[in-house]
Amino acid sequence: MPVTKDLVKRQDLDSLFEGLEKRDKRSAGLIMTLLEDEGPDSEAALRRLYAMPGRGLVIGVTGWPGVGKSSLIGRLAQGFLIRRKRVGIIAIDPTSPSSGGGLLGDRVRLRDVEGADGLFIRSVASRGHHGGLSRSARAFVKVLEAMGYDIVFLETVGIGQDQVTVSLVADTTVVVVAPGLGDHLQAIKSGVFDVGDIFVVNKADRPGADRSALDLESAVRLRQTEDWRPPVVKTVAADGRGIEDLMTEIGRHARLRASVQGAPRVKARAAEAEITEAVKTRLLEHFCGREALKSDAMARLAGEICERKIDPYAAADIILAEKGIL
Amino acid sequence: MPVTKDLVKRQDLDSLFEGLEKRDKRSAGLIMTLLEDEGPDSEAALRRLYAMPGRGLVIGVTGWPGVGKSSLIGRLAQGFLIRRKRVGIIAIDPTSPSSGGGLLGDRVRLRDVEGADGLFIRSVASRGHHGGLSRSARAFVKVLEAMGYDIVFLETVGIGQDQVTVSLVADTTVVVVAPGLGDHLQAIKSGVFDVGDIFVVNKADRPGADRSALDLESAVRLRQTEDWRPPVVKTVAADGRGIEDLMTEIGRHARLRASVQGAPRVKARAAEAEITEAVKTRLLEHFCGREALKSDAMARLAGEICERKIDPYAAADIILAEKGIL
Repeated sequence: MPVTKDLVKRQDLDSLFEGLEKRDKRSAGLIMTLLEDEGPDSEAALRRLYAMPGRGLVIGVTGWPGVGKSSLIGRLAQGFLIRRKRVGIIAIDPTSPSSGGGLLGDRVRLRDVEGADGLFIRSVASRGHHGGLSRSARAFVKVLEAMGYDIVFLETVGIGQDQVTVSLVADTTVVVVAPGLGDHLQAIKSGVFDVGDIFVVNKADRPGADRSALDLESAVRLRQTEDWRPPVVKTVAADGRGIEDLMTEIGRHARLRASVQGAPRVKARAAEAEITEAVKTRLLEHFCGREALKSDAMARLAGEICERKIDPYAAADIILAEKGIL
Repeated sequence: MPVTKDLVKRQDLDSLFEGLEKRDKRSAGLIMTLLEDEGPDSEAALRRLYAMPGRGLVIGVTGWPGVGKSSLIGRLAQGFLIRRKRVGIIAIDPTSPSSGGGLLGDRVRLRDVEGADGLFIRSVASRGHHGGLSRSARAFVKVLEAMGYDIVFLETVGIGQDQVTVSLVADTTVVVVAPGLGDHLQAIKSGVFDVGDIFVVNKADRPGADRSALDLESAVRLRQTEDWRPPVVKTVAADGRGIEDLMTEIGRHARLRASVQGAPRVKARAAEAEITEAVKTRLLEHFCGREALKSDAMARLAGEICERKIDPYAAADIILAEKGIL
């Protein structure tokens, strides 16, 4: 983390948000740093953020390392910049914040467009988030929306819950695979398939691309609704082939989403889970205080859980009884 | 899920646990199915489980798809079976429960040893767990320990929080990479590096294996403690090369863990987070009831979160005020 929480004092919140309204990237970065912590400052920032106007199109781009997500986002960003859109990129990345995307070599990298007017890039380490990822992702999107970005890319690496979590925050989720990795089969079987709105076979000049696309297309047919059958687009991000098709599909999906009343069921459920989580946190704060759970009993019980002697619920009951709460 | 919750009635818990004590695999499977749900039955099962004796060595095996985790676990399982250990394998898998591991072709697969006496294999879909993965993984490990399994493998696919979560449950975490994927660099930079106890370069007969091992070794030097420098082992699971070395290192690490008092700091912190989560759940149950949060207000607020009009904390405050709780 480039800036510690201590540097962002509560008395500075006013000036940080003034900066944000002036579209100052440094202020935005500091607010994001603040939001990564949990605590009163973070919550105050969150409150102010949600009070600000701004609504962009959030495009989740998800897929294994090496499929060319960074190149693809670079091409799409260029496409939107040419159309005079302001573009923000948030890379949810289990790796270093400095890599700006994947490590495997592709010719078009994000840094080629980085620094361009109207472009903002920020990497967020997903490590240590423990379920707060969805909240952070939503908050970071709000920061960029408040700054007037029209398009916000959320890039996620890997497979598993992180990916699904982030796709629930996005308006449109693009699932990217590459031929020869067998990853399109994994994608079909994984949770991310259910939340994918558009599927991309990148590196489509490689052998096996047609097969990957066909497999995806037949799987997608089962997910077809009256409104939308997720399209399968073949691209070669390295030379730009298929990017226009992909832009078209993204636009088509955005228009559909805008015309349909209410959020899709799966996203509403995720939001309900977030509210429930917030209710739980509020109850904990109210009845136990923020720090009150840090006790000798807690440390001892944690040790016993590591030894698999008790389960977390039994430990919770002991702590609540000790405090006379339940 | 092969069995629905309805099939496992509460009155059957006694007979299921009788079966478990008799090491009946079907009873174990039914209890695991029950544990995957949340609810009173699941909790009753959890209570009984933690009251049972049994302590095995839990080995987390983690790495990208295609590095050969399944083959490696197959070889290690054979090694332990030869030493007359009873071996259980739990595959935390974002893909189909039926695949029994990765999809990419390796010659030695888990099914070669499946069905062998003293071997138990169960796949757990990680989708939909939303942070309950750690609790499920601990519970499933307890099931196998209660059945007297000496060794329990926890296999995780992919990168991200799932991996780190599972490594916190394991006694020994083995991080597996393969040459040419660039994944050893990703591993070094990711959260899983901090929780890896042993690093394996599998497919070490391929070009780039020495380079991967050297990179890992120099990164590992920075993590060295007085007690332990995570070793880097080269293996070829396909023909068994290096497996004995890996068995030796696993044994060395298990002896170290057994000799050190208390759990490592990172695992104790994870256990504290689990207790806190359980405290929150208890408070929610007590003050709101299990189902009480399902309301029209909840649905409306969830919609507003999807529209990014309010944040989850503001929604929580509205709900708590409406219920007159806070």
